[in-house]
Amino acid sequence: MKKGLLMVYTGKGKGKTTAALGMIFRALGHGFKVCMIQFIKGNWKYGELISSKRFEELLDFHVLGRGFTWKSEDIEKDIKVAQEAWRFAKEVINSGKYQLVVLDELTYLVKYKMVDADEIVGFLKNRPKDLHIVVTGRDAPESLIEIADLVTEMQEVKHHYHEGIKAQKGIEY
Amino acid sequence: MKKGLLMVYTGKGKGKTTAALGMIFRALGHGFKVCMIQFIKGNWKYGELISSKRFEELLDFHVLGRGFTWKSEDIEKDIKVAQEAWRFAKEVINSGKYQLVVLDELTYLVKYKMVDADEIVGFLKNRPKDLHIVVTGRDAPESLIEIADLVTEMQEVKHHYHEGIKAQKGIEY
Repeated sequence: MKKGLLMVYTGKGKGKTTAALGMIFRALGHGFKVCMIQFIKGNWKYGELISSKRFEELLDFHVLGRGFTWKSEDIEKDIKVAQEAWRFAKEVINSGKYQLVVLDELTYLVKYKMVDADEIVGFLKNRPKDLHIVVTGRDAPESLIEIADLVTEMQEVKHHYHEGIKAQKGIEY
Repeated sequence: MKKGLLMVYTGKGKGKTTAALGMIFRALGHGFKVCMIQFIKGNWKYGELISSKRFEELLDFHVLGRGFTWKSEDIEKDIKVAQEAWRFAKEVINSGKYQLVVLDELTYLVKYKMVDADEIVGFLKNRPKDLHIVVTGRDAPESLIEIADLVTEMQEVKHHYHEGIKAQKGIEY
C-alpha cells in the first residue's frame, strides 16, 4: 500500500485553496473518493460548488465553520463550532470512505486558539496510512510542518486588490 | 465590461499548475469557456485529463511543448516547437472564444531563451480587455510581474521527494 501524503499549503499569498481545488480535480479524475471540509464559511466559492456537482458520486463537501470575523460577538460559540468541526473532521478521516481529505483553513482553528495545535498535529500524525490529506491556511504551525510530506508557502508578490480592482466572478468566487 | 486579470503563479514550490487547475475548475463552474495550453509536455497529468472530460463543452486543452530536457539533442527543433506554440497561444488569446486562458509553463520559453520576454510581455500587456489569463512557471521575468494583476510565488518549504517517497497517483499525476 502506498503511503498517504500530508500536504500543506500555507503563506499569505493567494492560491492555497485554489491549489487544494486543483488537487481535488486531479484526484477525482482517478476516481478517488474525496471529502472537502471547510473550516471558514465562504471560502469555498460558487464556481467550484457548481463544478463539483459533476462529480457528485465522488466528492462530498462540508461547510462547518462560521464566517470569519475579526471581532466576534460570541467567542464561546465560535470555539464550540470550531471544536465540533474538528471532531467531525476526525470522524471523516477515520471513516475509511475517502482517499483524499482536504481540510481547508484548518490552521485558522490553531491561530485563533480554538483547537490546540498538539491535538491536531498528534491526530494527523497517526492518520490512516493510505489516506492523502491536504491542509490549507496561513501560519501553519511549525509542528505541522515537521510532520508534513509536502509544504508550499504561497507568498504574495502582487495583488490587484491593492490597485482597487474588485473580486471577479469565475476567478475569485 | 470587467477587466480581465493577468495572474502569475511562479516560484520553485509545488502547486503552480495545481493552482491553475483549481482556477479552471472554479471558472468552469461559472460556465466560462476555458483554454489550457501546456508548454511542457507531461505537465498536465492523467488525473486532470480524465476530470476535464466532464467539461468537454467548455474546456479545450492543447499540449504543444516537447518533454523537458536539460540536455536537448536538437536545440533548433526545440526552439522552433516553442515558437510555434507561442504563435498558437497568441491566436487562442485573440480568438475571442474564451474567458480564461491558462499558459502553463510559459516562463520556460523565456528562461531557455526560446521566445523573447519582451515579445511575450508586450503581447500579454495588449491582450483582449475582458480575457483572464493565468501564467505558470518558475522564474517569471520581472517585466511580466510588472504588468500582472496577481502574482503568487510558491516557495518550497518541504518536499517528500527529498525523503525518498515516490510520486503518487491522484496526487502528482
